[in-house]
Amino acid sequence: MLRFIGVVESVKEELSRVRIFDEFAAGLQGLDTFSHLIILYWFHRREDEESRRVLKVTPRRHPGAPEVGVFASRSPSRPNPIGFAVTERVKREGTILWVKGLDAVEGSPILDIKPYLPRADAFPEAVVPEWTLRGPKT
Amino acid sequence: MLRFIGVVESVKEELSRVRIFDEFAAGLQGLDTFSHLIILYWFHRREDEESRRVLKVTPRRHPGAPEVGVFASRSPSRPNPIGFAVTERVKREGTILWVKGLDAVEGSPILDIKPYLPRADAFPEAVVPEWTLRGPKT
Repeated sequence: MLRFIGVVESVKEELSRVRIFDEFAAGLQGLDTFSHLIILYWFHRREDEESRRVLKVTPRRHPGAPEVGVFASRSPSRPNPIGFAVTERVKREGTILWVKGLDAVEGSPILDIKPYLPRADAFPEAVVPEWTLRGPKT
Repeated sequence: MLRFIGVVESVKEELSRVRIFDEFAAGLQGLDTFSHLIILYWFHRREDEESRRVLKVTPRRHPGAPEVGVFASRSPSRPNPIGFAVTERVKREGTILWVKGLDAVEGSPILDIKPYLPRADAFPEAVVPEWTLRGPKT
């Protein structure tokens, strides 16, 4: 049902190198006119049945976080292990794309890239609970 | 590979009613502490092979848009027909969720809900090409 369109080849500090498979190269035209890209990827280390049955988590990287439902968390353990990140486009050389802010581990399959549209996607005043502000961004 | 966790039951103007299937209800705990929710859904009308082979589009709802790769557009025709929307949480009654800004048609299967975290997800200054500013937001 899902197709992998690419892979995270390497991660060095904040910078990730993504390779898009040649058969999807035509889909990249015009990508360089956007400063930020939404990347959907596959949490391949959590595709086992046990991880996909998790419905409640206690986000341990966020001190003081309560137990919450997976849909109120960014946990990789969830019914559909799809990762989401807004990334900064740094550079592209053909099908090799460098981005900042992609929180996917090396080897993660890429599912989709979408342009980030601030008119639709940026809500700087969105309200969040206190625990999300402690620890990492996601 | 993918599991449908719910469905868009109705859409009236900007307001969408989403039903999450009972078996995933526990995952909703804590959702109401976030003002905005990311919703991933399935473009079920574009899951045919022909739509999934599209790699270039001319976004016709945006006057003057050039031909671009699907990864530089929000077109529903793409290798993985996964829709993405940042929505405003309006109300929840158990497994029924009302949101604003979900651009999915009635009957669309829901794949995932994630909390919107402005610290990670809001980039109001992101740069976009001129054509994306004409016509609808996405």
